[in-house]
Amino acid sequence: MTTEPRIKGVYSAATTPLNADQSPDIGLFTRHCQRLLDDGCHGVALLGTTGEANSFSLSERRSILEGAVKAGIAPGKLMPGTGVAAIPETVELTRHALSLGVTRVVMLPPFYYKGVSDDGLFAAYARIIEAIGDDRLQVVLYHIPQVSGIPLSLSLVGRLIEAFPDTVVGIKDSAGDFANMEALIAAFPGFSVLAGADPLLLPLVRAGGAGCITATSNLVAASLRTVYDHANDPAKAAVVETAQARINAYRSLSNSYVQIPTIKAMVGLKHGEPAWTEPRPPLMALNTAEQADLAAKFAQLP
Amino acid sequence: MTTEPRIKGVYSAATTPLNADQSPDIGLFTRHCQRLLDDGCHGVALLGTTGEANSFSLSERRSILEGAVKAGIAPGKLMPGTGVAAIPETVELTRHALSLGVTRVVMLPPFYYKGVSDDGLFAAYARIIEAIGDDRLQVVLYHIPQVSGIPLSLSLVGRLIEAFPDTVVGIKDSAGDFANMEALIAAFPGFSVLAGADPLLLPLVRAGGAGCITATSNLVAASLRTVYDHANDPAKAAVVETAQARINAYRSLSNSYVQIPTIKAMVGLKHGEPAWTEPRPPLMALNTAEQADLAAKFAQLP
Repeated sequence: MTTEPRIKGVYSAATTPLNADQSPDIGLFTRHCQRLLDDGCHGVALLGTTGEANSFSLSERRSILEGAVKAGIAPGKLMPGTGVAAIPETVELTRHALSLGVTRVVMLPPFYYKGVSDDGLFAAYARIIEAIGDDRLQVVLYHIPQVSGIPLSLSLVGRLIEAFPDTVVGIKDSAGDFANMEALIAAFPGFSVLAGADPLLLPLVRAGGAGCITATSNLVAASLRTVYDHANDPAKAAVVETAQARINAYRSLSNSYVQIPTIKAMVGLKHGEPAWTEPRPPLMALNTAEQADLAAKFAQLP
Repeated sequence: MTTEPRIKGVYSAATTPLNADQSPDIGLFTRHCQRLLDDGCHGVALLGTTGEANSFSLSERRSILEGAVKAGIAPGKLMPGTGVAAIPETVELTRHALSLGVTRVVMLPPFYYKGVSDDGLFAAYARIIEAIGDDRLQVVLYHIPQVSGIPLSLSLVGRLIEAFPDTVVGIKDSAGDFANMEALIAAFPGFSVLAGADPLLLPLVRAGGAGCITATSNLVAASLRTVYDHANDPAKAAVVETAQARINAYRSLSNSYVQIPTIKAMVGLKHGEPAWTEPRPPLMALNTAEQADLAAKFAQLP
């Protein structure tokens, strides 16, 4: 493997707006993706946890990705989540992405059974990658044990890189444990370690990390880009610290209530687009009092 | 709601054999289902956790259920799992079952997001039931928080029964907490409380429970039937205790290694059918030493 990470930069874990009938609002979604790129994101990591991917059917997921490509977003800027509980469906979604020229995906491990072995997780990823059999594929592993229930150990990551050095090229680490990210960077030169938590972007880039895939980027992509671009420039230290503080303020507010519906509500407040407020069950929209509180606090953000 | 539970008896959480290419071996599966019914099961709860349902694609799940119906198993004896992470796919799988005349299903809540509210879970189940819109449907809720990550609270169960009294008719409680099962029985007369753990069948039936859906039934269905039929007959106390002890011995051995592949290996040992040994990743077959140890201990079982 090279010593330069293959996937670098600020990726938005884009949230997905719904129509009144709870179907994905693909028009508004693609406009949002374009906005994120205009604001400075290197790419859009759609159909992740923030994007409620696992609340959509396979056909809805395909429609959302096709919608983004048809809207003119370059396939090279799209990095969808394709990992589901059943191996054949992960294969199907990943092949579908490749058929659209989208070669980079973020891949959850199978997440129904808990406490499974590293051998079992290795076998699952290996079967998926071998079944897809496409040299173009670049996989970002997805470590988000607080949601998936499935931690990806350093040892497992190492085995996957060794077996598939040109395919397993990165990890999204959303567990929030900076020591784990440092260990990944130290163990695997050239492997893209991407922070899933916004407050860690600055320390991660300074430690040699490759960037981030975060939820707050739906709101403050330009600030994330500032941090990413100038993290290691002492002359820009003050600008960078200010940008990271702004990111942290948005992040903190988004965690006042359940994060994903709160992010959606904040996107709606930012753009005057009330259509954003509804998530799909089991997530629920903020209630009226929460929305009012959020709006008041949102107006005070830097 | 009536005061007599609508779903009663011994249901097998049937395990699913695979062909060498890891596709479901539908012929062997349906023969196994028929064996379970011949051994005394009232029905087969296929495509559950033990059946590795969430490791199969939607089309594989449909094929497995169709295979059982085509093999001549009465639809009224089949109770498939149909709950997946995405509401539209739970609706699709449940409608498919109904289209085959299979009106009883075991339904996991959406299980990707953790820590979701009872309001969110209620909204999810309500949307599913309303979207299906079929008066024939009987839903068994599925409480298995150690795997799904999603506990179903007493209060949530009560709200669902109140909203859908003719549809939400039971619960499979696999958490192993007998006090919770007692609380369900006390709170909801006529609601079918089914034990997901074999050792609890006898105390549960004595406490007014409706029966069980368990993994060990793949091996000792006749003993489970003995317990179920005679739990409250003092004249049969010794026979019942012996049967429950036999069940517990099988259960204990199945927990020596990872349970689901061990159950599969034990079914293979019982019937001389080595095809059973492979699960789908992320579950893994027992290694050679484990298989030898299991075979030696299996030969000693009562």
